Amino acid sequence: MIKKIDPGHRLLLGPGPSEVNPAVLNVMKLPLVGHLDPYFIQIMDEVKKMTREVFKTDNELTSVISGTGSAGMETCFVNLLEPGDQALVCVNGAFGNRMCDIVERCGADLIRIDAPWGKPIAPEDVSHALQNCSPKVVAIVHAETSTGVLQPIDKISKIVHDAGALFIVDAVTSLGGAELCVDAWEIDACYSGTQKCISAPPGLSPITFSPAASEVITSRKTKVQSWYLDMSLIQKYWSGAKRAYHHTAPISMIYAIHEALRLVLKEGLEQRINRHFSNHLVLKQGLEALGFEFLVEAPYQLPMLNAVKIPTGLDDATIRTRLLNEYNIEIGKGLGEFAGKIWRIGLMGEGSHLDRVKILLSALTELIG
Amino acid sequence: MIKKIDPGHRLLLGPGPSEVNPAVLNVMKLPLVGHLDPYFIQIMDEVKKMTREVFKTDNELTSVISGTGSAGMETCFVNLLEPGDQALVCVNGAFGNRMCDIVERCGADLIRIDAPWGKPIAPEDVSHALQNCSPKVVAIVHAETSTGVLQPIDKISKIVHDAGALFIVDAVTSLGGAELCVDAWEIDACYSGTQKCISAPPGLSPITFSPAASEVITSRKTKVQSWYLDMSLIQKYWSGAKRAYHHTAPISMIYAIHEALRLVLKEGLEQRINRHFSNHLVLKQGLEALGFEFLVEAPYQLPMLNAVKIPTGLDDATIRTRLLNEYNIEIGKGLGEFAGKIWRIGLMGEGSHLDRVKILLSALTELIG
Repeated sequence: MIKKIDPGHRLLLGPGPSEVNPAVLNVMKLPLVGHLDPYFIQIMDEVKKMTREVFKTDNELTSVISGTGSAGMETCFVNLLEPGDQALVCVNGAFGNRMCDIVERCGADLIRIDAPWGKPIAPEDVSHALQNCSPKVVAIVHAETSTGVLQPIDKISKIVHDAGALFIVDAVTSLGGAELCVDAWEIDACYSGTQKCISAPPGLSPITFSPAASEVITSRKTKVQSWYLDMSLIQKYWSGAKRAYHHTAPISMIYAIHEALRLVLKEGLEQRINRHFSNHLVLKQGLEALGFEFLVEAPYQLPMLNAVKIPTGLDDATIRTRLLNEYNIEIGKGLGEFAGKIWRIGLMGEGSHLDRVKILLSALTELIG
Repeated sequence: MIKKIDPGHRLLLGPGPSEVNPAVLNVMKLPLVGHLDPYFIQIMDEVKKMTREVFKTDNELTSVISGTGSAGMETCFVNLLEPGDQALVCVNGAFGNRMCDIVERCGADLIRIDAPWGKPIAPEDVSHALQNCSPKVVAIVHAETSTGVLQPIDKISKIVHDAGALFIVDAVTSLGGAELCVDAWEIDACYSGTQKCISAPPGLSPITFSPAASEVITSRKTKVQSWYLDMSLIQKYWSGAKRAYHHTAPISMIYAIHEALRLVLKEGLEQRINRHFSNHLVLKQGLEALGFEFLVEAPYQLPMLNAVKIPTGLDDATIRTRLLNEYNIEIGKGLGEFAGKIWRIGLMGEGSHLDRVKILLSALTELIG
């Protein structure tokens, strides 16, 4: 007989999932209501309202996808692209690569701009690329979770719109932990995840589309290749007076994001972003004192995901395993070309607190100091 | 300020979500572990093992999709079909129609067999259709949630395999509540949901592929059109010694299905199926005594979803609203051509108990008796 789950208490200081507030865990144990229950419709409306607030947008087409952040990524591309369309993707890490993979699966024509992993994309590289093509969409990652790079968005947004393209931004790791202004930065499609700075369990993807993007979806010539992620169908369930059944909404997860967004707004978005930044500075000072070097230059360092080079002589797996087994602390390993070369230390949402910083620094000091 | 969630206690006697056992709700409030944590890998292995047991299969390629039952449906078609392939879909309700929609979005050539809504598909109709085509897959719904029809599977399976096709079966509503034997019935691809007779919250789709289906996936010429639902990528995370990151697994929902499957197996699959059948008989007797007529003929009635015609003179919405507001009971409305004409009364998983049957029958007696 398989035993009941007993996960213990990990300190989640990796690239996500992050620690979840007990208040959020507690709403998930509430009894379920039906997915067309008037009470649930109210909860969905409140989730939409709060999602708009954290994205800083008035976009009507704002919703939550019943899948993780990667499903949100796929939702943007499959809804905005039709076979033969051109898409320009900016790549400086694993998630830019994932975008390229999805663009190709859409039967679209992919053009990519590559920057070295660990560096931001330069606006002039986007300008330059746009002199030789006229893509329907340009996509970029705001917070590259694989490298710890914070990508400045506003300049590139202007360049993209001057070229007449729609601008897709991946905000999986940044939402709720770094400044993100969907309307002010004129982002046309933006998606996130729940398991990073929003601090709900993984499983949903908040998403928003500008009126221009919405219009592109409405005037498609072909059906969206994914039935499950078809925004025109999802929208009929998430808004309007008459809610049309699409798929059965993940009730308990919607409870969770409702409570998590409530806590984000209760703390205040600005305060939360400041908290992420100030705890990042303390961690950074401590890590540098221990001899760690950051992968990314200071102005582009993510506050919620600290990518540091593993000092020579330290074995990646050994230290991470000891942190997990002896201290119950999870940190993230490197991905792709940084496998074995960097660690990714997350201070996300509920995990971005001074006590967590201190616990991690003491553990690292004991292990390698 | 938006208030904290307080859903009260609904008696969920519709087409799902069904009532969730408090033990399942309680594991969702457990702290999260990382999606590559050795403890979580163990949980995933246990979920796979239990999923095989409830599906009655030894299929190696068995997993859980991070989306609802409809995502499971899409997973089957996008992984098994390539553009230009031929698919035969048996349609006798809303979910057969959904399959057709997805097949077309795959760029496949759709052939459909239609039976009247409320009737099963006749094996001879499948034989007849297969004389004029050679599809790569034939798909059918085992428990048509829109009409309450239980579809006999084994005869059709033989016909499908004699024609050299793969056999896809939708078991969203039947798994855990009616007999389903993936291996004995030679089903090649089968998916379900968590929010019906498994009685976990909605959000996941247990799925399994036979070795033959698995081979078809491995030898595809084109990439699966959905990155999120690509089984070759999902499998690298769900099995093998080295787990490759695909998307972040929905940790808390995996906890929930783990506990729900544990409870299914603790009760015993046979006992659980018998319980669904015997409570269905009691409900049926009670409903017939109140003057209700079943939509479906006795041998094809689903034990977990009772579709009854709304007696002349009763207003659909009025009674359902009164049941919800005055008795806290949810039952399901009709879909498609049966909108306003039938009710769908679910006795699924934790909801299939004599006390629930009695509460519903008393409420109905008071309202219309």
